[in-house]
Amino acid sequence: MTTRAGVILSGGLDSTVCLAIADRDCDEVLAVTYDYGQRHKVEVGHAAAVAASYGAEHLVVPIDLRGWGGSALTDDTIAIPDDGGAGIPVTYVPARNLIFLAVAVGIAEARDLDAVYIGVNALDYSGYPDCRPEFVDAFAATAALALKRGVEGNPVDVRAPLIAMPKADIVRLAIELDAPLHLTYSCYRGGDRPCGACDSCRIRAAAFADASIADPAS
Amino acid sequence: MTTRAGVILSGGLDSTVCLAIADRDCDEVLAVTYDYGQRHKVEVGHAAAVAASYGAEHLVVPIDLRGWGGSALTDDTIAIPDDGGAGIPVTYVPARNLIFLAVAVGIAEARDLDAVYIGVNALDYSGYPDCRPEFVDAFAATAALALKRGVEGNPVDVRAPLIAMPKADIVRLAIELDAPLHLTYSCYRGGDRPCGACDSCRIRAAAFADASIADPAS
Repeated sequence: MTTRAGVILSGGLDSTVCLAIADRDCDEVLAVTYDYGQRHKVEVGHAAAVAASYGAEHLVVPIDLRGWGGSALTDDTIAIPDDGGAGIPVTYVPARNLIFLAVAVGIAEARDLDAVYIGVNALDYSGYPDCRPEFVDAFAATAALALKRGVEGNPVDVRAPLIAMPKADIVRLAIELDAPLHLTYSCYRGGDRPCGACDSCRIRAAAFADASIADPAS
Repeated sequence: MTTRAGVILSGGLDSTVCLAIADRDCDEVLAVTYDYGQRHKVEVGHAAAVAASYGAEHLVVPIDLRGWGGSALTDDTIAIPDDGGAGIPVTYVPARNLIFLAVAVGIAEARDLDAVYIGVNALDYSGYPDCRPEFVDAFAATAALALKRGVEGNPVDVRAPLIAMPKADIVRLAIELDAPLHLTYSCYRGGDRPCGACDSCRIRAAAFADASIADPAS
């Protein structure tokens, strides 16, 4: 049986490894990138390059989360900190993964995809609540109730293969799968070059350091 | 304590009654309307008129679901039937209420709203899976896990006050609450006048007939 998957692709490290996994495990892959008013919109172009390197169809979905703000990533009046600090940081975007997954399973139903991949990780991460396994599990159950194919006993499989992996292992897996790390981009600040100081840059740098691998995109 | 609510408002009968309930029960109401590429985009203007009649702030959120289609409401090549027939009809939009609720709770978190209202009804309806109480309950639990305020023990309250009501009772409640029914619009075909033949028009007409009330918008 042909397996078809959608992959939520930001153009960063984790989602690119997710695409590599889906490309390995599925017959057809559709990459979905959200153009959500993020300060680091430059990532959308990186996502396109990553998708192209796999010959995958790439759907860019505009959904502007700036209309209500509430995050340093979607509101220019909130500065991006160098250190997220304790608790849930200001770079948290309210309901982002909930919205991204909701749209992705809608696309999956409309385009007859069997699975949706999301590259969330709950180990070396920023403490966002919508990256935790209990959220992903609850979402999958909710989607099964929302969708026609769930009612028909054939729910969309929601996969988060990186959720329990140390970030250094994600880097190692990227190398193993020959993922195009040189095309990826992770910086929250969205400059031409990664700032190296924001939470996302620091977590990425630590992962490459732990894996003793040079980051080809730095 | 001040209670602030978001109401998902399509401009139809049910969501307008929902807004009337929220207006009665809460101190402040924000109406949220999705401009999602629906064939009956005319409803967005009706929603604006309904929101204005309550003096409520009105947020119109563009999220184009035409990019992947899969429904007679978002794909002009699929005709809107006069009779939905058995099973889930072609007017079902994949993951629509899941997406609408996901965005709404994101807005709630960003704008500090205590509750989100959605006017789904699982009694006199078209058989859409995402109108059933089990879906709404699962969504509320998932949103509590996704959101910062859920982690903080103060989840957004997801309210579907019409879910178990016969449609005629919704009409009666609209009259009781003096909801501006003359401003509402329910037709899937999106013409200047309701077609009177689509599922949505027929369910609405039956409700007014059952309640022995003349529809001020027909």
